[in-house]
Amino acid sequence: MLTAISAEQLKALEQTLHREIPLTLAMGITVVGFDEHGLTLAAPLASNLNDKRTAFGGSLAALATLAGWGLVHLVLRDHGPATVVIRECNVSYLRPVTRDIVATCSPPTPTELEKFLRTFERRGMARIELDVTIKANGEDAVRYHGVYVALDKARHPEAESI
Amino acid sequence: MLTAISAEQLKALEQTLHREIPLTLAMGITVVGFDEHGLTLAAPLASNLNDKRTAFGGSLAALATLAGWGLVHLVLRDHGPATVVIRECNVSYLRPVTRDIVATCSPPTPTELEKFLRTFERRGMARIELDVTIKANGEDAVRYHGVYVALDKARHPEAESI
Repeated sequence: MLTAISAEQLKALEQTLHREIPLTLAMGITVVGFDEHGLTLAAPLASNLNDKRTAFGGSLAALATLAGWGLVHLVLRDHGPATVVIRECNVSYLRPVTRDIVATCSPPTPTELEKFLRTFERRGMARIELDVTIKANGEDAVRYHGVYVALDKARHPEAESI
Repeated sequence: MLTAISAEQLKALEQTLHREIPLTLAMGITVVGFDEHGLTLAAPLASNLNDKRTAFGGSLAALATLAGWGLVHLVLRDHGPATVVIRECNVSYLRPVTRDIVATCSPPTPTELEKFLRTFERRGMARIELDVTIKANGEDAVRYHGVYVALDKARHPEAESI
């Protein structure tokens, strides 16, 4: 079911990011595409430089966070209005990123996806763990592991959201 | 030695952040102060909102990353030109941040600090682990643990920097 994401849905995701999270505009984030490798977001190096003239670690973490958030958002697009929050993440910075930043969130396995959706339908709340990779010159530059929680706000109006 | 940080040095740190890392301007980051609790940076909620109208997780991670980076930068201010890079971090998002974001990096213990500086002097390279906390309504909202590496570039010109 994850393969059936249209260009319009990707455009809508980008518009949601720009409208709801203003820092994504300052970072210049775009939604690049979705294929068998997962959801890919990008951001230009120029807007995300650090003192070494490579990509700022905070920008790398933020882009990875959004790649995972966006993937959960797309997964739940046909499951009613859901709130998606990040609970925890681990980021390993392996080498500098010296060009525009491209982050790809790998899709969950069919088993993980089915369990996530089944739990969300039954409890109105479910968690999923996702991996995001940012490459530089063909090698892994950043490895990100994030834990996300999706909430059906109609069924959990009391839930806090991050 | 960490207590002897002047207002001018804190201002210089803020200017360095704004000059070298342009996203810190978009985020509105300021250096608030340094005391026995550590180095504190802040950023207004309005520039760092998410779709829940609370603080964006990517902004929280970025501010925490910079609080740790800034502390290492201050620690090394009398030890020659050093490059400070982030190697790894873990971020736990415990509750939403609904007001301006304030991140405090706890100072290392005297033993940790001494070991870090001794290693840096001897090898021109040293690592240090730091904890940063962001509170909301008096309770921990974000707990961040980061691993930083400082490099004396004159002695390690080949080193990659993130």
